[in-house]
Amino acid sequence: MATQPVPVVTAFNWVPDFARGLVRDLRVRWALEEIDAPYSTELLNARSPRPEEYLSWQPFDQVPAFREGDLKIFETGAILLYLGEKDARLLPVEGQARWSAIAWVFSALNSVEPVIGRIVAYDIFNADQDWAPAARESALGLCRQKLKRVTDALAGKDWLAGQFSVADIAMVTVLNNLRHTDLVAEYPALAAYKARAEERPAYKRALDAQLADFAEQPQQAA
Amino acid sequence: MATQPVPVVTAFNWVPDFARGLVRDLRVRWALEEIDAPYSTELLNARSPRPEEYLSWQPFDQVPAFREGDLKIFETGAILLYLGEKDARLLPVEGQARWSAIAWVFSALNSVEPVIGRIVAYDIFNADQDWAPAARESALGLCRQKLKRVTDALAGKDWLAGQFSVADIAMVTVLNNLRHTDLVAEYPALAAYKARAEERPAYKRALDAQLADFAEQPQQAA
Repeated sequence: MATQPVPVVTAFNWVPDFARGLVRDLRVRWALEEIDAPYSTELLNARSPRPEEYLSWQPFDQVPAFREGDLKIFETGAILLYLGEKDARLLPVEGQARWSAIAWVFSALNSVEPVIGRIVAYDIFNADQDWAPAARESALGLCRQKLKRVTDALAGKDWLAGQFSVADIAMVTVLNNLRHTDLVAEYPALAAYKARAEERPAYKRALDAQLADFAEQPQQAA
Repeated sequence: MATQPVPVVTAFNWVPDFARGLVRDLRVRWALEEIDAPYSTELLNARSPRPEEYLSWQPFDQVPAFREGDLKIFETGAILLYLGEKDARLLPVEGQARWSAIAWVFSALNSVEPVIGRIVAYDIFNADQDWAPAARESALGLCRQKLKRVTDALAGKDWLAGQFSVADIAMVTVLNNLRHTDLVAEYPALAAYKARAEERPAYKRALDAQLADFAEQPQQAA
């Protein structure tokens, strides 16, 4: 019997403090921990260009990329769906439950993350720019609207698609990009949802593993 | 034999000129046209709140939402994957080809569209703000980097995942949000890719159908 190849995930061997616990390989590690699947990491240097051949695996030169045997996948959304198709604990097998979970993965990455990314850009990457506060203000209403919509969708549910799924891995790791703000706390049911997810042992193991790989300058994430 | 239910797609019955040809139901119409699948539309009013019950179908109160029999799906990425799983002309059935196409759908929506959305916000929605030019300048480098990465990935290929797929529907409709700029034209191979996609009869039929539904104030998109 052929043994299942152990998947490989790329990650960084160091990132600045503000990014620790936010780098996207966390999503893939978390999914793998939820199904007790062993994996190995290939650590890349965030401060120097990656080898040219890495672009054929991850065309945007980012982490994570995923490999299992000969199969190579990039984009965390795609990797989460791949793992979900292998294990119903991550993604219901069929019907409305499956498509609701897939829809919420896309929601996290395309309806919610883009406006959160703007807040992060203004607060962190453009913090020294005199236009940043006004730009932030212009994005804030849309950000709050998205957070409210997700909160409303969670009414009466522990998880976005009923059972825990890759949708929650995507959404919670997207929301965590706002940890330098009080925006999620403005929606107590959303904050409770996020806390519920982060109490899962698999999340904690994944976070510990990411932080442990920042070996050059080990520090705890905020 | 049970007949296949005809899918329903929600769309708007009017949008301002700048949005004509860009509203996201175009993605779903295009995919359906590629496989010659009939569909019907439910037209919503963009200028007044949608009925409260619409949120249970589309939690962000946007278009499109998709229904086929009892199955309801939101998020264009999820709808494209659903249609892709039904027809290999939209998504290869298995293996590397399938996962490359899925990865590129996520790339379009999560790696490329967010920064294009910032350019659109500054150029159109915040055009009267004195901070908008500086904010735009700060996003431009990242936008060009993404466009270059997609261009490089297309080297030697007509389509992102080898054969035409939902990945191209996602990417081309994302790129089209830059039609008010010359940014795509800076990358001739990318512009040629976009033109190649838009020459497909299915794209033209989908665009015509969207524009025809803006009945209150019919005008051609730019």
